[in-house]
Amino acid sequence: MFDIKIITIGKIKEKWIERGILEYIKRLSPYAKIEIIELKSESFSSSNKQKAVAIESARLEEALFKEKDSTIYFLDEYGDSLGSREFAYKLDKENGKIVFVIAGALGYNREILKNKNLISLSKLTFTHTMARLILLEQIYRSVCILKDKEYHY
Amino acid sequence: MFDIKIITIGKIKEKWIERGILEYIKRLSPYAKIEIIELKSESFSSSNKQKAVAIESARLEEALFKEKDSTIYFLDEYGDSLGSREFAYKLDKENGKIVFVIAGALGYNREILKNKNLISLSKLTFTHTMARLILLEQIYRSVCILKDKEYHY
Repeated sequence: MFDIKIITIGKIKEKWIERGILEYIKRLSPYAKIEIIELKSESFSSSNKQKAVAIESARLEEALFKEKDSTIYFLDEYGDSLGSREFAYKLDKENGKIVFVIAGALGYNREILKNKNLISLSKLTFTHTMARLILLEQIYRSVCILKDKEYHY
Repeated sequence: MFDIKIITIGKIKEKWIERGILEYIKRLSPYAKIEIIELKSESFSSSNKQKAVAIESARLEEALFKEKDSTIYFLDEYGDSLGSREFAYKLDKENGKIVFVIAGALGYNREILKNKNLISLSKLTFTHTMARLILLEQIYRSVCILKDKEYHY
């Protein structure tokens, strides 16, 4: 049983993305405990964007203090890109508590990424809510790969 | 105004993916004419999978006969991976009719991909319906990049 936490910034506005996420959490329920933590996003204008990024990143760091026993992966465009099988084997190897961090619309303060595990979903940029959906789909796909289970969709 | 056709195999079963696709087609409507062509998928069992792939790929090839004037891109895991900006500039450069082809759940008969333009959304494998959603999101993102328009989501 995987124990996976996804720490994110901001709420999902699109109902259809929410539905998709709930669908994958439901499908994953026999194999993984999934918890999604939504930290407050910071409103911003073009003049105070840097400050807003810094505040959001500080919130992520604070939330991560409680996750010292977990393996932490930051989703980031400059991270390692994996194929679905590599991703599945990585999850399997951890065999413990795993935390995925997804920045908000503004991205990270790059300072907090130093010496961290960074993984990339694609060279393409996605919205942070699409990234959440794609991550969950890949976790479900991982379970199907590891259990040699047909992927029904 | 982009003139984009997406040729795919099979229908979308997930209502939430359909909603997402419709959302992006609506947002794109001032900038791009989007047409989605869904060819019939082939039912299959483990014993006749190869035959089903061949039939579906033949259907794609037949549909592509009518698209001689378009630039055709096949979405494929072994294709070039682009960043969102590169993808946007590629669309912009074409400045004409563009066709994207997405295989069904079974993938392609690799024969039909010889000497073709292949592009990859990610090293990760996605379902063919998620690929359709991600492609549309990236076309919308491209328009935002090219028009220097803020991406609202």
